[in-house]
Amino acid sequence: MSASQDTVYQATCTAPVNIAVVKYWGKRDTSLILPTNSSLSVTLSQDHLRSLTTARCITSSTSTSTSPRDRLWLNGDEEDINEGGRTARCLAEMRSLRQKIEADNSSLPKLSSHPLHIASENNFPTAAGLASSASGLSALIATLARLYDLEAHGVSQSDLSRIARQGSGSACRSMFGGYVAWEQGERADGADSVAVEVAPASHWPDLHALILVVSDKKKGTPSTAGMQRTVATSALLQHRIKHVVPERMDRISRAIRERDFDQFALETMADSNQFHAVCLDTVPPIFYLNDVSRAVIQLVTELNRASGRAVAAYTYDAGPNAVLYVQEKDVKLVLDVVLQYFPQSAASFPDPFATGVAPTGSKERVAGLDGFNAKVIPQHDEGAVARVIHTKVGDGPRTLDSATDGLLDAEGLPKSLAK
Amino acid sequence: MSASQDTVYQATCTAPVNIAVVKYWGKRDTSLILPTNSSLSVTLSQDHLRSLTTARCITSSTSTSTSPRDRLWLNGDEEDINEGGRTARCLAEMRSLRQKIEADNSSLPKLSSHPLHIASENNFPTAAGLASSASGLSALIATLARLYDLEAHGVSQSDLSRIARQGSGSACRSMFGGYVAWEQGERADGADSVAVEVAPASHWPDLHALILVVSDKKKGTPSTAGMQRTVATSALLQHRIKHVVPERMDRISRAIRERDFDQFALETMADSNQFHAVCLDTVPPIFYLNDVSRAVIQLVTELNRASGRAVAAYTYDAGPNAVLYVQEKDVKLVLDVVLQYFPQSAASFPDPFATGVAPTGSKERVAGLDGFNAKVIPQHDEGAVARVIHTKVGDGPRTLDSATDGLLDAEGLPKSLAK
Repeated sequence: MSASQDTVYQATCTAPVNIAVVKYWGKRDTSLILPTNSSLSVTLSQDHLRSLTTARCITSSTSTSTSPRDRLWLNGDEEDINEGGRTARCLAEMRSLRQKIEADNSSLPKLSSHPLHIASENNFPTAAGLASSASGLSALIATLARLYDLEAHGVSQSDLSRIARQGSGSACRSMFGGYVAWEQGERADGADSVAVEVAPASHWPDLHALILVVSDKKKGTPSTAGMQRTVATSALLQHRIKHVVPERMDRISRAIRERDFDQFALETMADSNQFHAVCLDTVPPIFYLNDVSRAVIQLVTELNRASGRAVAAYTYDAGPNAVLYVQEKDVKLVLDVVLQYFPQSAASFPDPFATGVAPTGSKERVAGLDGFNAKVIPQHDEGAVARVIHTKVGDGPRTLDSATDGLLDAEGLPKSLAK
Repeated sequence: MSASQDTVYQATCTAPVNIAVVKYWGKRDTSLILPTNSSLSVTLSQDHLRSLTTARCITSSTSTSTSPRDRLWLNGDEEDINEGGRTARCLAEMRSLRQKIEADNSSLPKLSSHPLHIASENNFPTAAGLASSASGLSALIATLARLYDLEAHGVSQSDLSRIARQGSGSACRSMFGGYVAWEQGERADGADSVAVEVAPASHWPDLHALILVVSDKKKGTPSTAGMQRTVATSALLQHRIKHVVPERMDRISRAIRERDFDQFALETMADSNQFHAVCLDTVPPIFYLNDVSRAVIQLVTELNRASGRAVAAYTYDAGPNAVLYVQEKDVKLVLDVVLQYFPQSAASFPDPFATGVAPTGSKERVAGLDGFNAKVIPQHDEGAVARVIHTKVGDGPRTLDSATDGLLDAEGLPKSLAK
């Protein structure tokens, strides 16, 4: 795809979304993004949700520009790379790693000296209500690591997660597939605040995720501002940090290693609720759950109760969307119950796993649930849950072929601009 | 009103509703109703909300019944007095106090030996969503204390509150007017778990209360069951009990003594939020606030922010209704803002204080609030807040004239039955 006969240095990677089951809420260092507690997440499949990034070194032979500089396009729109901002910091950290390698290996091309053109796209709409910063920053770091060939020179995924963390805290967890812990660390410089793999996706591959996209009329408190307000004002947060999360990290890690869904579900739901509890304990209080979120919780609670075991585990981030973790064997049942109470149009319920479940659920299957209280919540109108996204646990960042999948054209500009 | 020439022993009292500003949530002894933390409430005026109770000793001369026994009518319907139940326990405790006095004063009539007929009515509909058990049990105890002439024989209001507590925990606080603490106590027998007056209503008389009655489609978790689930499962509750409430009791008592509304409001709102936070931290979680409750919180938060001081303090019990505490000087402003966003019909907004505020608020006054973000919440449809009740801090139980205000007729049966 190079316009000249010279080598084009570029790389293209995708990175996944992750959804925490032990929540990150609170920074002990807002500049370095060092958290007040460890957290743990499940990485979701890039087959369905991903950020895609291409980065290219702009050398004299690959650019006609007279004053090349770092440039960034997000979903086709150019964004400023503010000096001292998070993206600039990530670029500087990655260049610095490359520079050290170049200094030790004089035969390597001096890629760190060239400006970068970076284009990135998410395949999920903002309206899906999924935080795109984690997958986006993770894709940026994965792509630059590939461009600079860092892995071959001894830079680990955890090292990279340390840099991704500085771009967007939870991005560090998207540097791994499967089940990922972000260890809070103790050092002031954040060197030990990194992501580590608890278990790969292949260890427990049948964990599915149903994302129930719930619209909210009112925009919630941005998480960056919200979490620091909680740190400043919630007495309960301190108890959570010191006395609840450490034990929970141990228990849920064990549950993952033992594929113990009951325990995994119990910890996941309790942690989500406690996260929202400390938000409510904030001055002034922060609300992310609305009446639809609450109805989903009550529905899952009743479904689990009637089943005598956990068939679904809900979790909520800084917004009203529910993410339900479900084992493969229970996906049909859970989908039927959810779609019965929150009916969809076919468009809002694509069925990538070909479950065959109808967008309005199956009354028969729900009725067959002995002891299930059908009146636990009212049946909602279509649109209360705007969309259902069905995905599952997945792997970490992937490398693609820039020639076929890359986002930059021969001129080093986004292909999308040419359209 | 006696049917014979013999003395009729009867008494009629009213008792008030109280709304906690430091919440009671959790029992350390469910039988004696001993709480896990102290609480504090404001007693509301009986001019607007009250329970009215008449109790009469059924002597041979006042009854034609061949087998007189304790009987109880609530709002005109006879209720069983279950043996071993809370009402029976309260009757036994009150009789026991009277018996001691009779034993020491042989000239006194042996009232403790007679069965009782008791009729009680609330002047607020169940639909108002106000807990009637506090005022109801308090009225029962106040009426029996008057009937048995206990006060003249050295029984204090705090002694009586100890008995009311065993009928319904928060009833103990309705034995006093004004600002009332329920001290949790330490003794296993509950002797020191009593209500005490922090300040009488006359100390800070201009505190008004606006009760915004919010309907909820779904019946919430009953508080008796809910609080014990929180005790059993919430890690945050223990922190609240040990490290938050004791200091808050001190601070809010001081705020009341100093009539410091800013501090009073801060503690009131924080405690309400923390109470609902520990409900959310319960397994499975307990929700009492709904989207309308949440909107009221956001409206009050914005109103206080724009005003640069606390003009209103919200608090929520085990349901979606908001109670706003407001100083007299701010009542018009707060009503205007509330009614602007939650318009009422005239029927749902009676105006006992003749404020002259329209049921739909005054756009002018709201617009005159510099810096107030009018878009903080959407303007709701009539009915989102079903009714607004306007009242204020008030005194403790009152004694009425049984002849004119009593609920029992000459036969000792509820007058309402004769209608």
